[in-house]
Amino acid sequence: MLKAVEQCMLTWIKELQNDELYELFTHLPHGKRLRAKLVLKIAGESPQSVKLAAVIELIHAASLLHDDVIDEALTRRGVTSVNASDGSKVAVMMGDVLYSKAFTELVAFDDKIASSVASAVTILSIGEYMDVKMGESFNENEEAYLDMIYKKTASLIEVTSYCAALLVGKNEDDYKLYGKNLGLAFQIIDDILDIVSDDETLGKPALNDYKEGKTTLPYMYLYEALEDKDKKRLKQAHLQDLDSNESSWIKLQMKEHQSVERSYALARTLSDEAIKAVSQHDEKELVLILEDMMQREF
Amino acid sequence: MLKAVEQCMLTWIKELQNDELYELFTHLPHGKRLRAKLVLKIAGESPQSVKLAAVIELIHAASLLHDDVIDEALTRRGVTSVNASDGSKVAVMMGDVLYSKAFTELVAFDDKIASSVASAVTILSIGEYMDVKMGESFNENEEAYLDMIYKKTASLIEVTSYCAALLVGKNEDDYKLYGKNLGLAFQIIDDILDIVSDDETLGKPALNDYKEGKTTLPYMYLYEALEDKDKKRLKQAHLQDLDSNESSWIKLQMKEHQSVERSYALARTLSDEAIKAVSQHDEKELVLILEDMMQREF
Repeated sequence: MLKAVEQCMLTWIKELQNDELYELFTHLPHGKRLRAKLVLKIAGESPQSVKLAAVIELIHAASLLHDDVIDEALTRRGVTSVNASDGSKVAVMMGDVLYSKAFTELVAFDDKIASSVASAVTILSIGEYMDVKMGESFNENEEAYLDMIYKKTASLIEVTSYCAALLVGKNEDDYKLYGKNLGLAFQIIDDILDIVSDDETLGKPALNDYKEGKTTLPYMYLYEALEDKDKKRLKQAHLQDLDSNESSWIKLQMKEHQSVERSYALARTLSDEAIKAVSQHDEKELVLILEDMMQREF
Repeated sequence: MLKAVEQCMLTWIKELQNDELYELFTHLPHGKRLRAKLVLKIAGESPQSVKLAAVIELIHAASLLHDDVIDEALTRRGVTSVNASDGSKVAVMMGDVLYSKAFTELVAFDDKIASSVASAVTILSIGEYMDVKMGESFNENEEAYLDMIYKKTASLIEVTSYCAALLVGKNEDDYKLYGKNLGLAFQIIDDILDIVSDDETLGKPALNDYKEGKTTLPYMYLYEALEDKDKKRLKQAHLQDLDSNESSWIKLQMKEHQSVERSYALARTLSDEAIKAVSQHDEKELVLILEDMMQREF
């Protein structure tokens, strides 16, 4: 049924009657289509659910295009990013095209769905803005970090579950909570993978986040645990190209202070809360999605 | 009543609860608010018309932010552009925030209005994409150029008039045609001003378009009129930093071959068609808007 979602997106992009854009779109890396899967698992398979899934995936694709421009990322899921292959101009415009096409199709849904998805996109954009701003200096504030990843990542996953539930008259608040916690856990796992994976699995250099300025949870937890002298050393490495000596030191310290484990534990707590939120709805597949996500390696 | 539109936008941006974004927004140059004026003149002054005007102006502001990133413009209306002052990352994200907030508010309008505005944004984004692509080489194709400026500039002005008419039950097709022709003429005048204005009036260096790759109508008409040897010279200047010698030569040739006058004549024809489109509706103010636009100097 994911195929129907892909087909729906291709049909919509074809409607734009611009061959180059269509070509570019077909070459975007697909990723896991987590959001489309969520819609189909929650709302079942119907013309409406396929369209909702396609709208959300277009929005997600647009946000990644702009995100890569912002991060100056050269690759996305191991593939050259659009901003690297075709320039950031094309990536910005292509993102705008996908966003606006998604909004055009969104209008056909009822107001509650349309306005909540549109609001989520605003929150998502603010989240990406906060991500950029927070990356300018070392961040010790866990609450601020969680607020930022809620906005940047969880808000769209939250609204995906919420709207899928609305489509079929399920209890939307339970599914909203599921989506929110899934989204938060997802981002924390993503942040962990940047530290524990090797470059090849990740499709980008490991420890890249910290170099880009992102003080993710494991760095924050490590900082808390370190002596003053080492706190200083960790801070000095922020936003720097790390040599293998410094990378090894960070990884060793994280091992010693169990910074990754502590981050993983928070993701686990959030994941458990997500499962609990839908526990009375017998949603085995949603539990599976969570477990897959928690155990993914890229 | 434009004040009510400004206030509405400020209230919406305030709702996003991000002080930095609010601050940035208040410093964006206002411009002429042509689109807001159009809504208010066509639909009169009501809470709905103010909101529609605010939605359209937010969309326009978002498109300018992204447009400046694309064009690597250092100034906008004589003021430092956001991408120049705060970086293109901030400009991209700020644009996304304004677009999505506009879409969020747009959902409250009826489907016909919401979907036509959303479609226009897609067309606008494709137009900006085409503008970038066409700028990579000298363009001789007038039809392709007019199609691009329809998409990039006229589509949003067209939908502005169309939706304003819908709001108050006026004949939407007449107003749509008015808006389309106003938009096309507006862009042609803009292109002319890049050639005939001095740097100070324009707020950016004159003959900047050609340096950026934009073969606007006067260049196209000049090319048509030139001898082969001079055709080659004009083509060679495309995408180049022009010294005063080359700039003067281009301006002199344009004078000799009346390239600007020919472009202005097309704008005049379009403007006349716009007036004709609403001639039976006794819209003196819309005629005034057109006349002001045709005679503007920046």
